[in-house]
Amino acid sequence: MVQNSLGRWIPQQFNGRACRPYCDPFSVQPNVQRASRALRRVNPGQSKLVSNLIDAVIASGLKDGMCISTHHHLRNGDALLNNVVRVIDTLGIRDITIASSSVHPVHAELIPYIHSGVIRGFECGVNGLIGELASKGEIHCPITVRTHGGRARAMMSGELKVDVAFIAAPCCDLYGNMNGCSGPSACGSLGYAYPDADYAHCVIAVTDNLQPYPVTPISIAQTQVDYVVEVERLGDPQKIVSTTTRITSDPIGLMIAKHAAEVIEAAGLLKDGFSFQTGSGGTSLAVADNVRKKMLAAGVKGSFGSGGITSYFVDMLEHGLFNTLFDVQCFDLEAVRSIARNPNHLEISSDMYANPFNGGGVVNQLDAVILGATEVDVDFNVNVNTESNGYLLHNTGGHSDTAAGAKLSIITVPSIRGRLPIVRDAVTTVTTPGETVDVIVTERGIAVNDNRPELKQELLKRKLPVKDIRQLQQEIVALTGQPKAVEFEDDVIAVIEYRDGTIIDAVRRVKD
Amino acid sequence: MVQNSLGRWIPQQFNGRACRPYCDPFSVQPNVQRASRALRRVNPGQSKLVSNLIDAVIASGLKDGMCISTHHHLRNGDALLNNVVRVIDTLGIRDITIASSSVHPVHAELIPYIHSGVIRGFECGVNGLIGELASKGEIHCPITVRTHGGRARAMMSGELKVDVAFIAAPCCDLYGNMNGCSGPSACGSLGYAYPDADYAHCVIAVTDNLQPYPVTPISIAQTQVDYVVEVERLGDPQKIVSTTTRITSDPIGLMIAKHAAEVIEAAGLLKDGFSFQTGSGGTSLAVADNVRKKMLAAGVKGSFGSGGITSYFVDMLEHGLFNTLFDVQCFDLEAVRSIARNPNHLEISSDMYANPFNGGGVVNQLDAVILGATEVDVDFNVNVNTESNGYLLHNTGGHSDTAAGAKLSIITVPSIRGRLPIVRDAVTTVTTPGETVDVIVTERGIAVNDNRPELKQELLKRKLPVKDIRQLQQEIVALTGQPKAVEFEDDVIAVIEYRDGTIIDAVRRVKD
Repeated sequence: MVQNSLGRWIPQQFNGRACRPYCDPFSVQPNVQRASRALRRVNPGQSKLVSNLIDAVIASGLKDGMCISTHHHLRNGDALLNNVVRVIDTLGIRDITIASSSVHPVHAELIPYIHSGVIRGFECGVNGLIGELASKGEIHCPITVRTHGGRARAMMSGELKVDVAFIAAPCCDLYGNMNGCSGPSACGSLGYAYPDADYAHCVIAVTDNLQPYPVTPISIAQTQVDYVVEVERLGDPQKIVSTTTRITSDPIGLMIAKHAAEVIEAAGLLKDGFSFQTGSGGTSLAVADNVRKKMLAAGVKGSFGSGGITSYFVDMLEHGLFNTLFDVQCFDLEAVRSIARNPNHLEISSDMYANPFNGGGVVNQLDAVILGATEVDVDFNVNVNTESNGYLLHNTGGHSDTAAGAKLSIITVPSIRGRLPIVRDAVTTVTTPGETVDVIVTERGIAVNDNRPELKQELLKRKLPVKDIRQLQQEIVALTGQPKAVEFEDDVIAVIEYRDGTIIDAVRRVKD
Repeated sequence: MVQNSLGRWIPQQFNGRACRPYCDPFSVQPNVQRASRALRRVNPGQSKLVSNLIDAVIASGLKDGMCISTHHHLRNGDALLNNVVRVIDTLGIRDITIASSSVHPVHAELIPYIHSGVIRGFECGVNGLIGELASKGEIHCPITVRTHGGRARAMMSGELKVDVAFIAAPCCDLYGNMNGCSGPSACGSLGYAYPDADYAHCVIAVTDNLQPYPVTPISIAQTQVDYVVEVERLGDPQKIVSTTTRITSDPIGLMIAKHAAEVIEAAGLLKDGFSFQTGSGGTSLAVADNVRKKMLAAGVKGSFGSGGITSYFVDMLEHGLFNTLFDVQCFDLEAVRSIARNPNHLEISSDMYANPFNGGGVVNQLDAVILGATEVDVDFNVNVNTESNGYLLHNTGGHSDTAAGAKLSIITVPSIRGRLPIVRDAVTTVTTPGETVDVIVTERGIAVNDNRPELKQELLKRKLPVKDIRQLQQEIVALTGQPKAVEFEDDVIAVIEYRDGTIIDAVRRVKD
């Protein structure tokens, strides 16, 4: 075990790889060459079509001990990863690592294959039951959690080698040109699958909507695709995209949102060229709504909105409040419709979105980002991976990436959740380092990081309810009482990789 | 010297690199990994702007003996390559290799820098005076001529290593997002510059039209760009794109075009899904016009047009005769306008267009291509590089790429040019191997390659003027007389690289 700069104890090795301890958000330099793969040749007349998933897996040359990936644009509607693992099991292949861009509750179907040794571990964050069972010691599979940008970096640097990528392609032609814009499994942006197309040693396009050549627009191109396979269904359309995303009606959420928008305004960011990102949660959308009103009132014309895109951002684009949307993932049907028809609604890869080791991602140009948390602590560290019960339940997403990139990163969070105080002495797990978190907004007050004294002054001047983070914590704990500390065993079940590849924290098995 | 499979004598080494002799169009397999480059890191707040070209060259770390590139989308209006070389000379840097996607007559300004040792050679084909002087032995600079697809392959395989790419960006933001759609130097597609952005060790965006972040559409993205520099002018807008491209009015050209269209029809290709490419020459456009009429008459709905795009193809797209245009280069203003506004007019890289060593280029899906020639021979080999006087005057472009990819490749050529017969016993230089050439159409008759006997029968059935290639040659020579053979010295001034990296021919110094 070794301690990183945040005082977190991390293993020296995890899942066969040396762990470099986290030091700070910006100074690690990449000292490697971009990952490579063998050039291939596809001659005229050569077909890429294979008749089913079994033949595709055979054609890919997948063997015991290799690594596969899928993308998570189909979210909890995805059937592909489960189907692929079923085929792998049928073929008697064992000891497979899953390096999907994320894993969702629907993939709890994989649990028997973890028990049986078909799956040996996850090179990706896991949402839901798999993480919970791993936290309880009921399944054994090392988990390496990465940010969206960190995953692109890990593939680009060769740290994460995917042998076979199975790319769910909602619209695809027989040469492998694909997009996510149409078809029964339409999901909009395919941004998280770009690095897989670029770095996986074998790329298989899997579609339930084979269209005549050439499919347009082209998100991932024929030049990257080895095989094309048609399946009955990629997933459950009802669960692939939400039909709507909605602003919260909870008065606490609304108050938090109002304050968050006021913080952005106070920071002097609401001027022409403003760029902005929020998630799809009800409070985030309420912040977007407040910001929209402020932009309209002040006649501000923003430059771009980014990240996971919702109908609220589409509306802002269409009303000229943004010039451009940078879309790595569509969160609702309106976003899917928009990306298919609006040339200023751009699909971007996770590399372009947030990779810290390229010529500069979109997050570097962000003015303000609204982020959530399961816990925060008095050093402004944020946890989004584990809950206060210690269970690993959530992937990091773009949390640490946008916090590091944006000029202003705001955590919006209720002060109490499930009777537990949200502000802790130390978060159970550090996902995003406090150094990159500027403001924490709760319904009981706004805490400003000491590294932003000028912003704190401005908020006080504007009579916003600014409180010292420790004072805020005390007020909350006075209501909830001091929660009982969760006890952990020594076994590390997961490491939380910071976007630069260093390990910012380790997740341990929870004591029975 | 060693003889390749076409009987051409090629050097064993050229410009420090071993020459692999050409064997056949399709069997060479790539046995290498994709080229790499160092990962970089650009943190938030870090600027990429440098104040002028001199500072850009200094920032790039360019040193004696290195290799630079530009793209040729500004064609004969390009001022950037000349300006860059002038700056390199000012900085006292020597022994530079030019690996641009092509060099045009305007770059004759580089000749003094060849004499003075600033430029040591060309890893690209050269159009115009540089090749002529090299052919005469008046300048000394090894020249490696590549196809468009072959250049992408050579960069991808690491055979061609570009140290610094200077990318003319007609519309660019301060983070390096760029397109060719607008601004005084608008040129449309930037397709030839994509491999440079992807593989050059340092990428500099040079613009005369710096726009607010983010520029859209994004042809080459911020993630690929190291520095951005603003200059007064990238070139002469009058010469960057022709305002119009025109169908020939020459009766010989019109007759050839009519026959070419009839050959396509006879080959059974004019049906739904038809895909097609022509160049921008007057005869090519006349073929396009004939094909268009036949498609309209038969109610055929094609799939795509590709290559260098003209207003004729734009018109066919807009009238529903194609679903899609794959545009690696805009040949006229109408094409530039179209690519900026029509989502079915897609910009593609030279890699996607024609690289033989990827997952399959667009050329592999082509039904018919119309190509030109300076000479053809009785084995259907085609020369587009040298003229019959032996001077190296032209780059290969996509000639060999499309001939290899298309189901039907047709050479349209007048039987006599400058009193010289076009059909030879052996072409002066082999650019494109006869094995990939199906039909040669002249105003005196149509020659069909023996490897297409069924097509020959069909043309005869349709009473088209089919002639044996030797009979055609004899008829022409009966009119022109047997031309005096050009005499060559032993010195090789250039090698003609086939798309797969083998050497298909060598160009020698012409005897005084």
